[in-house]
Amino acid sequence: MDFETFNLGKVALQSGATLQDMKLAYKTYGTLNAARDNAIVYPTFYSGTHAHNEWLIGEQMALDPRRYFIIVPNMFGNGVSSSPSNHPQPYDRARFPHVTLYDNVKMQHRLVTEHFGIERLKMVTGWSMGAMQAYHWASMYPQMVERLLPLCGSARCSRHNFVFLEGLKAPLLIDPAWQDGFYDKPPVRGMRAAARVFAGWGFSQAFLRQKLDIEALGFGSLEDFIMNFWEGDFLTKDANNVLAMIWSWQYGDIAANPLFNGDFDRALGSITAKAIVMPGRTDLYFPPEDSAYEVSKMSNAELRPIESIWGHFAGGPVANPVDVKFIDQAARELLES
Amino acid sequence: MDFETFNLGKVALQSGATLQDMKLAYKTYGTLNAARDNAIVYPTFYSGTHAHNEWLIGEQMALDPRRYFIIVPNMFGNGVSSSPSNHPQPYDRARFPHVTLYDNVKMQHRLVTEHFGIERLKMVTGWSMGAMQAYHWASMYPQMVERLLPLCGSARCSRHNFVFLEGLKAPLLIDPAWQDGFYDKPPVRGMRAAARVFAGWGFSQAFLRQKLDIEALGFGSLEDFIMNFWEGDFLTKDANNVLAMIWSWQYGDIAANPLFNGDFDRALGSITAKAIVMPGRTDLYFPPEDSAYEVSKMSNAELRPIESIWGHFAGGPVANPVDVKFIDQAARELLES
Repeated sequence: MDFETFNLGKVALQSGATLQDMKLAYKTYGTLNAARDNAIVYPTFYSGTHAHNEWLIGEQMALDPRRYFIIVPNMFGNGVSSSPSNHPQPYDRARFPHVTLYDNVKMQHRLVTEHFGIERLKMVTGWSMGAMQAYHWASMYPQMVERLLPLCGSARCSRHNFVFLEGLKAPLLIDPAWQDGFYDKPPVRGMRAAARVFAGWGFSQAFLRQKLDIEALGFGSLEDFIMNFWEGDFLTKDANNVLAMIWSWQYGDIAANPLFNGDFDRALGSITAKAIVMPGRTDLYFPPEDSAYEVSKMSNAELRPIESIWGHFAGGPVANPVDVKFIDQAARELLES
Repeated sequence: MDFETFNLGKVALQSGATLQDMKLAYKTYGTLNAARDNAIVYPTFYSGTHAHNEWLIGEQMALDPRRYFIIVPNMFGNGVSSSPSNHPQPYDRARFPHVTLYDNVKMQHRLVTEHFGIERLKMVTGWSMGAMQAYHWASMYPQMVERLLPLCGSARCSRHNFVFLEGLKAPLLIDPAWQDGFYDKPPVRGMRAAARVFAGWGFSQAFLRQKLDIEALGFGSLEDFIMNFWEGDFLTKDANNVLAMIWSWQYGDIAANPLFNGDFDRALGSITAKAIVMPGRTDLYFPPEDSAYEVSKMSNAELRPIESIWGHFAGGPVANPVDVKFIDQAARELLES
């Protein structure tokens, strides 16, 4: 095991469900200094684990573990933290409760404060649903979050994003092998079909027009790209975990909690962190227009789109060196400010 | 029956299949004049029939049946012309052969020349896959097509468009009720799931951001929009027909025939018609960038994007009055030139 586990004990979730022994898995990079003021929180994304966050961490990079103490909490449902696939009955498999991003960040806050005794965070960052969690951090704990760097994500799931995710779930839900989530063998055909749906959304039209699936990612053909990159990846995931994370994504909204009671503008206005907000210019489900609105309601934020044709994957573990460098420079600038 | 049928007799398709008694259904609007020089051909789109093309025809519009003789041929696979759902065995249902857009337009050409004795066309237009057929007309019969008005379509299916369609097919192909296309009862769940996949693609992110599903289309909620607009529509279609038309779409390419042997630029260069090419600015699967390329290789074409947030539905039977007027004005300008 290349990660640690923080035992949360009994947790009351926003949905009303209580988990008796919830676990938050995390990995840290670097060393917490004596003043406890060099920590960065960097949550994971849909289907990712701590290992998939390492593309932005390194000794030559802004997130330098020699300098910062980087905490990567695994989001619930990802198969490492408490998830449908690893939780005991009665809340196992399809009956694993809905977990909000608010729940996620509340538990991450416990890890950071109770376990590490940290009171202020140098920065919170994350890609995709990790960015959504970063927004939650900055709105829920504004006194604590000094800097915010959301990458290819938004403060709430847009209506279009929601519909895209409905399409992603749809094939899985009709696969008879899924058995309402109480399968013994994985619903392979449904997962493969869901992967094929996702294949049109992840990168941009221009990315495929320029054949970067072949030229940059090295696949042999368009179908080979769909097979290896999409189906191959989905087949490593548990179907209930995938559905649990999609639920968290669809209902992710920094205002959907008792602090803001649905007032999205007020939730954005509560963010005091100095922020650089980095959507991907050609991201099909977290488009820069949503980020522009969010920045307009934040007091100390700059919109800095990643001018890339890599769609949502302008960030993330398969991001290309040019985009990673652009993101890294923004992280450096923000951290040094 | 509000349409006519042209009996094509025995037809040898591009695939090598021969249909013994292929039928091309069509509807005409207006009267062919004595000089036979007032005809417009206006093919149908994916899942549409002649009736769904009427949004662009009318006495107050450029396509005025008092002035022009408008021929709307139904594309093969749409359930009205020869299709999986209406063709006798052995080429029935899932074994209905692949029909290319080249096949479609060759047969439309027979209707126009053999049946109507028309030698020149005032214009060819069409929306979506209808636009793809219009491009085929202009490249296959350049001497015959005087004007070309492709709406929200392209001269070939782009690689991204192809992947989008892979995702659309995927849920249908895993529905056990589909039975490899030899169902007695329709594969309702697969069709509904496919509809949910399509729901994210048809309109733009901005369309849903502005809640035009509710404000403009009059649905009660986002889910109601998915149910009524998407699932409701899909449930009126035959699954094999849908798959047949998707195949025609995915492999649509004006160069994929003996005339051009795959040389796309040469096929575009063969088009001599005066053209106004009208992609939707926010179309997610026929984006304007593909149209811009195509226009750059045509000798007499202007790119005129429809500045709309209605995505692919900047044209088509649910298009809004502003976009319809913009298209209609271009049609008028082109016809009067």
